[in-house]
Amino acid sequence: MNTLLLDSEDVEEYARLEDVIDAVEQAFAAFERGDTQMPAKSYIDLPQYNGDFRSMPAYLQTEGWDAAGLKWVNVHPDNPTDHDLPTVLGTMIYSDPETAFPLAVMDGTTLTMKRTGAAAAVATDYLAVDDASSLGLVGAGVQSYTQLRAISEIRDISTVVVSDPDEARVERFVDTFEDQFDVRAGSIVDAGHCDILSTVTPVEDPIVGLDDVGERTHVNAIGADAEGKHELSDDLLSEAAIVIDDHEQCTHSGEINVPYNEGVLTDTDLHGEIGEVVVGSKPGRTGETGVTVFDSTGLAIQDVAAAHVVYENASEATDGHPFDLVGVGSST
Amino acid sequence: MNTLLLDSEDVEEYARLEDVIDAVEQAFAAFERGDTQMPAKSYIDLPQYNGDFRSMPAYLQTEGWDAAGLKWVNVHPDNPTDHDLPTVLGTMIYSDPETAFPLAVMDGTTLTMKRTGAAAAVATDYLAVDDASSLGLVGAGVQSYTQLRAISEIRDISTVVVSDPDEARVERFVDTFEDQFDVRAGSIVDAGHCDILSTVTPVEDPIVGLDDVGERTHVNAIGADAEGKHELSDDLLSEAAIVIDDHEQCTHSGEINVPYNEGVLTDTDLHGEIGEVVVGSKPGRTGETGVTVFDSTGLAIQDVAAAHVVYENASEATDGHPFDLVGVGSST
Repeated sequence: MNTLLLDSEDVEEYARLEDVIDAVEQAFAAFERGDTQMPAKSYIDLPQYNGDFRSMPAYLQTEGWDAAGLKWVNVHPDNPTDHDLPTVLGTMIYSDPETAFPLAVMDGTTLTMKRTGAAAAVATDYLAVDDASSLGLVGAGVQSYTQLRAISEIRDISTVVVSDPDEARVERFVDTFEDQFDVRAGSIVDAGHCDILSTVTPVEDPIVGLDDVGERTHVNAIGADAEGKHELSDDLLSEAAIVIDDHEQCTHSGEINVPYNEGVLTDTDLHGEIGEVVVGSKPGRTGETGVTVFDSTGLAIQDVAAAHVVYENASEATDGHPFDLVGVGSST
Repeated sequence: MNTLLLDSEDVEEYARLEDVIDAVEQAFAAFERGDTQMPAKSYIDLPQYNGDFRSMPAYLQTEGWDAAGLKWVNVHPDNPTDHDLPTVLGTMIYSDPETAFPLAVMDGTTLTMKRTGAAAAVATDYLAVDDASSLGLVGAGVQSYTQLRAISEIRDISTVVVSDPDEARVERFVDTFEDQFDVRAGSIVDAGHCDILSTVTPVEDPIVGLDDVGERTHVNAIGADAEGKHELSDDLLSEAAIVIDDHEQCTHSGEINVPYNEGVLTDTDLHGEIGEVVVGSKPGRTGETGVTVFDSTGLAIQDVAAAHVVYENASEATDGHPFDLVGVGSST
């Protein structure tokens, strides 16, 4: 029996955003219903290489399908300068829950990009104004591209404002999208006054304040992924309705980790988890809702949901690279 | 940059037992020295499929090399009858600790077999009499083959006695090895009176008692891998010098788990961990030592050590299947 190998180009092709958004939304709902298993990430810290490994196993069951798998991923910040490699590299094993057969091994780096964009799209769908047509981006790195592509799947985005001190990155971004959107460079205030704002920077000192955003802007806070990082000022967070993806992860390493651990934010300041909003046990945006913030740390069930999409789409297209990895069962 | 894919045949070829035994011995020593990281296995339990998944990440550093990786493995006991698949399937991701680049993805099932045999060989080397020439096997399944092959790497085995109620399995075993050893079927008592005994059955009621073994037999207790399983009687364990691989794993799911949790065995009845014996902080066999037992549950560092051997040997032979999985860096 073959395992389907899916390289970064395959994942790029088959992690179709409309499908990944749908699967991630179902994963959030399953999480809220208790139909998931997601052991805490386990870490291997390697200070001698200024890096770490994380294993992220998960299982989820939702209407019509279930899925299991594991992402093995890392953070090695010296990679770009010392080794011409990205800081984060991921490998995903996608398994049949019924037999544990490894159905696929796929690039987990592109997968992470897609499921992160999809999570922001799901949150935006519930938390942004219905007629949102403008998207601001603070940070013009790779994830900003996926934010735009994913969010434009669920709102009719026409105007895009991108803010980044690196002019070359801004130019590359504008060049990429100028045929599809009215896209221009702007300040943080310009970006923040769009209907939707996604922040995708690794800063440890907040760069977006309350005055930088509109009265009903929905903010996807994507950048913070480790203790000490945050992009949004305390006054913005204190004013906003905050939706998190997971309490443990967000208070440990998400956008809220610093103010939460300083006692500036408490549990009563949190509106709820995205799963609660998706299943309807907590409201999304209403007529009265002002600024909203989605704190996205990224859950292992998002990876498994996205891997399910990639595997199903690639299988349907009879694409990918079949490989008899484990040498069992009848060969097909 | 390519990731090397290594299927079950590649692992079979390049997990050369003399090399794996050496690497596993170094891993045990590194464990004792504190030069390893091995987060507790995390489990996903799927009662609806009568199965579970386990993720086993690890890092180890020893003289001349270090290695990191993760094995994603399962136990699905209905697989053989319902799906014509083995109960246990494994996939191993082997990564460069310095950059986290996935150097290899390999079959983890064959790898598990090899590293388990190698662990028994290391223990046997320290705990069996120097002139051991006979090996008994209780159970004639796949692991019994690896036990013989691995143990005959470190002792000059001439006589082999195999005991299993399944005559066809015994016959197959005898046929395989009759050209290399004086190998015959026998009772448990016959097998147990060899210089070395390996037990490789999944029983929950002990089948080997104190009278079944010789006065100076070394026993590798391999079969127990879950709560409730044990192969050796309480009186045998009480009499023997017991060496375990890891306290947490052995008391949870190893050969000693039942008597330990019933209070029949306590920590004072344990001679030590195999790492202590390898580095010399606890003695191995001396002139006075009687029956010895090695309780092998299988550590994630054994998998990483074995994967290191497979990757190095396959790379040296320019074999395996290079695949640009993650699509980064210069392609080679």
